[in-house]
Amino acid sequence: MALRIVVVGGGAAGIGAAGAAHQIDPDATVTVYTEFEDVGYSPCGIPYVHGKEIATFDNLFLQGKEFYKNSGLDIHYESKVTGVDPGNARVNVEGEGDVAYDKLVVATGFDYRDPGVPGTDLEGLYYVKNIRRAMEWDKVLDTVKKAVVIEASPLGLEMVTALAHRGIETHLVDPHPWALAEVGDPDIMKPVMDSWDELGVKQHYNTRLEGFLGEGKIRAIKTNNGELECDLAVICTHKVPNNRLAGEAGLDIGSTGGVVVDQRMATSSAGIFAAGDCAELPHGITKIPIQGLSGSHAYSQGKVAGANSAGGDRIYQPVYVPWGMVAGKWMIGGVSFGETLATALGIPFVMGVAQGISRARYYPEMKPVRVKLLAEPGTLKLIGAQMVGGEGIKERADFLAVAVKTGVTLEDLAWMENVYSPPIGALNEPIAIAAQNGLSSLKS
Amino acid sequence: MALRIVVVGGGAAGIGAAGAAHQIDPDATVTVYTEFEDVGYSPCGIPYVHGKEIATFDNLFLQGKEFYKNSGLDIHYESKVTGVDPGNARVNVEGEGDVAYDKLVVATGFDYRDPGVPGTDLEGLYYVKNIRRAMEWDKVLDTVKKAVVIEASPLGLEMVTALAHRGIETHLVDPHPWALAEVGDPDIMKPVMDSWDELGVKQHYNTRLEGFLGEGKIRAIKTNNGELECDLAVICTHKVPNNRLAGEAGLDIGSTGGVVVDQRMATSSAGIFAAGDCAELPHGITKIPIQGLSGSHAYSQGKVAGANSAGGDRIYQPVYVPWGMVAGKWMIGGVSFGETLATALGIPFVMGVAQGISRARYYPEMKPVRVKLLAEPGTLKLIGAQMVGGEGIKERADFLAVAVKTGVTLEDLAWMENVYSPPIGALNEPIAIAAQNGLSSLKS
Repeated sequence: MALRIVVVGGGAAGIGAAGAAHQIDPDATVTVYTEFEDVGYSPCGIPYVHGKEIATFDNLFLQGKEFYKNSGLDIHYESKVTGVDPGNARVNVEGEGDVAYDKLVVATGFDYRDPGVPGTDLEGLYYVKNIRRAMEWDKVLDTVKKAVVIEASPLGLEMVTALAHRGIETHLVDPHPWALAEVGDPDIMKPVMDSWDELGVKQHYNTRLEGFLGEGKIRAIKTNNGELECDLAVICTHKVPNNRLAGEAGLDIGSTGGVVVDQRMATSSAGIFAAGDCAELPHGITKIPIQGLSGSHAYSQGKVAGANSAGGDRIYQPVYVPWGMVAGKWMIGGVSFGETLATALGIPFVMGVAQGISRARYYPEMKPVRVKLLAEPGTLKLIGAQMVGGEGIKERADFLAVAVKTGVTLEDLAWMENVYSPPIGALNEPIAIAAQNGLSSLKS
Repeated sequence: MALRIVVVGGGAAGIGAAGAAHQIDPDATVTVYTEFEDVGYSPCGIPYVHGKEIATFDNLFLQGKEFYKNSGLDIHYESKVTGVDPGNARVNVEGEGDVAYDKLVVATGFDYRDPGVPGTDLEGLYYVKNIRRAMEWDKVLDTVKKAVVIEASPLGLEMVTALAHRGIETHLVDPHPWALAEVGDPDIMKPVMDSWDELGVKQHYNTRLEGFLGEGKIRAIKTNNGELECDLAVICTHKVPNNRLAGEAGLDIGSTGGVVVDQRMATSSAGIFAAGDCAELPHGITKIPIQGLSGSHAYSQGKVAGANSAGGDRIYQPVYVPWGMVAGKWMIGGVSFGETLATALGIPFVMGVAQGISRARYYPEMKPVRVKLLAEPGTLKLIGAQMVGGEGIKERADFLAVAVKTGVTLEDLAWMENVYSPPIGALNEPIAIAAQNGLSSLKS
């Protein structure tokens, strides 16, 4: 009898899992349940449609429903899985009843952390997630004069930039002393914050949200620094694992709220795998479980979970988390952790910083590239990095993540060769200068 | 008595050497002899001024003469060193006579290989090198209707693109079957050649230069495929080491014509160092000596040679040669060697190729990025790479050069994490896809 594989969730992890399962065992029946109307689109693109960088939401769809049908996947749209019964190997699906599985992949994704203040039932609170809702909200944005973005999270940074680009009076409210404070170092974030100033964004740091005010519809937010009028609040609180189903089914839940998985993406319950934003995974250096990574991580994890659910034997390795994004007029990015987080975690480090350039100093559109490298004292192995600049940040972050993972040292980076060609690279690569400065700091 | 350090040559290697020598031993007298009127400018920028990408030659100057004087370097401009006498530790300088040294750095750079055909004495043959001559030639370019670029070398690629951008009818003549054939693979070069077609460049491959024709001034070139009229011929033949002084002084000259140096950049003669385009260095993988690298290599080598001449003890490591440039509307680049050269050298390899993208598929200005990875069979350690694409080529080439040097494998790259953010990076990094494809090729 064909193996019955059930996937709960139609995001990057769920679709990755379903595709990989089908590839490993083409005879298996692979059924995906999603609460939403669509799969196969890029939610990460939503802020850029709002910001008018991308012309239409249609562009975000990679594949239509026919494609998945023809690929051998049975996707049930707008289908809510209300429970998992591991003992009897069944899921309960609203409107379908009990559905038996041989293997299950939980890919239930994330929720935005509840703001935990009064007034969340008002109209005018936008949680960026589903593309159909985003299409509706995009029409609302045409009428919005004044918007507040709640928290300078990665999505918050994107939404602030998008709303400002759209010409809406945009306020950013965040309880920390600077933007993206739990990830980004202040010197990395300063250019971003300066460029928001130039865009007219009003930034309110050290400001705690205390409530949403209004009658039926939002009129203002209440903070420890007073009220702030607005037509719209975009809720960009932390992403927390959607662990409801997994928790109720008795799967082990970890310290982050994510489903605990081993390196095969297998949960504590035999035959059940988990992947994506609902799961937690060890950080390669600290071994501390982390969650809330990128769509690329979710997709890769899904592929491992799906392959293994179909009888494969794939490993998902600890993560070093290269990250990068556009915020204001800059690109920011890094790997693992920066100075602030390493200090907070009590991780000792040697640091090298350089303010370099992306092309020959005289070449048009040359951009600054600031690089901070953190290395383990003694071995000088790279353990983290942060960058802000005008180009090449994503590629450098990818590079440095492999460098961290494979044990590359400041010495290796200080004397690295680099491409020198006026339109694309400067005489001295900023990463190399930062590494040299790190080595110099040891001598003084 | 202060150490007397003499540097012959005022290019990247010479100036790098002089600066490093002064830094290591501030009491040393550091004297630089250059045949030219200037130092401290970027010759690599010249094609881009000709192409009008850069507004003026003035932009190419990094430092004026005052700067070097104030830095403690004694630079003798338009001063030709006519001989080196290692036995008596003297150089002979035209107009100055014999000059004694304690340590000598030879940084005499390169010459373009003589085309070796009749007519090289005609007017209208342009050898791109010195900035003062380039300023004069730039005025000539305003009068040129039809130009021929001799050989599709790296400089040839830049000059073809520059002249075409400038609106001159541009012909490229090269004896090989495709552009940059000794370095670039045909599939990497095809987009470049196509984009030259779009720019109106006439490309003549498999075409051997047989002479320059004209009375006093060039009128045409003669090739094995007939005559080709032109007002100007830009000579972009191979760069060969300028080894005259070193050879006459009895220093060991290697198989490439470059001065043989050890890892301290010391020549075969005690107290004499060499650096830059006049020297040859072992390739990290093949151990074969190579020469004619980038300005970045010359500068780094100069710093090692200069530091050691002043009593330092620095090492210059074998080279893996990341390279990259703009040609036509594309960026090309790589590290070590591609498929064609590895095959020609008899180096066995596993290969993975991917046609990826630089941003989310739906994000404006998303560009293709083609990646070819070569790995050692068995260990799967990366040994080479080539790329063509629209952005991020230089950064990827730098990354892959470190990867080759530190023993990163196709396995490491296949499962690398990557930044995913629509405006700066795609869901799947092209390098990772290429590595996955390389691994897949082993299973079939």
